[in-house]
Amino acid sequence: MTHYQKLLKVSTNGKSLYNITPRIAEIVTESGVKIGLCTVFLRHTSASLIIQENADPDVLLDLANFMAKLVPESAKYIHDAEGSDDMPAHIRTVLTHTSEQIPINNGHLVLGTWQGIYVWEHRQQNHVRELVVHISS
Amino acid sequence: MTHYQKLLKVSTNGKSLYNITPRIAEIVTESGVKIGLCTVFLRHTSASLIIQENADPDVLLDLANFMAKLVPESAKYIHDAEGSDDMPAHIRTVLTHTSEQIPINNGHLVLGTWQGIYVWEHRQQNHVRELVVHISS
Amino acid sequence: MTHYQKLLKVSTNGKSLYNITPRIAEIVTESGVKIGLCTVFLRHTSASLIIQENADPDVLLDLANFMAKLVPESAKYIHDAEGSDDMPAHIRTVLTHTSEQIPINNGHLVLGTWQGIYVWEHRQQNHVRELVVHISS
Repeated sequence: MTHYQKLLKVSTNGKSLYNITPRIAEIVTESGVKIGLCTVFLRHTSASLIIQENADPDVLLDLANFMAKLVPESAKYIHDAEGSDDMPAHIRTVLTHTSEQIPINNGHLVLGTWQGIYVWEHRQQNHVRELVVHISS
Repeated sequence: MTHYQKLLKVSTNGKSLYNITPRIAEIVTESGVKIGLCTVFLRHTSASLIIQENADPDVLLDLANFMAKLVPESAKYIHDAEGSDDMPAHIRTVLTHTSEQIPINNGHLVLGTWQGIYVWEHRQQNHVRELVVHISS
Repeated sequence: MTHYQKLLKVSTNGKSLYNITPRIAEIVTESGVKIGLCTVFLRHTSASLIIQENADPDVLLDLANFMAKLVPESAKYIHDAEGSDDMPAHIRTVLTHTSEQIPINNGHLVLGTWQGIYVWEHRQQNHVRELVVHISS
């Protein structure tokens, strides 16, 4: 049994979905693991992880539009000292994911053809988001 | 350390929740693993995985009704070339899960009495959905 | 490869978020694992797990208020025999999580500074909730 871990930093500039699939795939290759499990963990509570369609960028726009309506920044929140986008960011994180698990087979993530791994930044200001990529084999 | 992996295909015919618990349990038995971790990963972005009540089928109906209202197919989406149920399917997937992790103890999944594992198909047309079941021990 | 498993019982008295981070951290310490993966699995369908901000308790209040509006107990559900808070509890569970995965590094969970692990009880009456904490190394 090997556990291979790597800290990954993702710079974000504004609310958007950032495709990190190539960076995760690179770490899988580096690890040399042929069969195993890859866990991606995000160390934050105002950004999240999702696995979604990597083909048509309109899908990501529709996702963002939906979430903006479902959890509006214009609503009244008790926790409002960190800006109007902070509490909505926490709620959007809870409704999505903080970690994702993808099996590895034959040295590659078993993602479907249309699946990409995204950091979903829910805050407007620039951030450096830290992720821990953990590979067990 | 052993990693046991199996590809599972689930045929779906219409928007519904498909109970795959017996099929996952069978793979756990096959693996011979007594203590370990079972990861179920779905290779799609318009269907999802959930763990929910396996007793009263009305729970699944209420879940489906709630989701149909929360993410309506009648809304206007930018990504609409693949049918009116496609973009809602992507959003419903993001609001639920692409993988589930269940520990194994004494050769069995540690599911609670009322927990079942479901593929939630969000598209109306027939599909064959691929899952990777990964067992580490 | 070691798999360390422990059953954890969490008593809940009413709808609220219960911080279980210290109890999970204690089990990680007990396990003696320095590098590995910690899975927390909740054996119920009317309570859920989330990772969220551990600093300002107002964040948890806003989360609870948001969920109360998104999945109202006053709505009409088919499954209503177990009380008006039961079906909403199932839906709130599906929209959040049944398990969480956190890598372990240097003997500690790699949680971010502001991240806490919570059991989110969605039922009003008292419960004893069972979790399985699984550590692989």
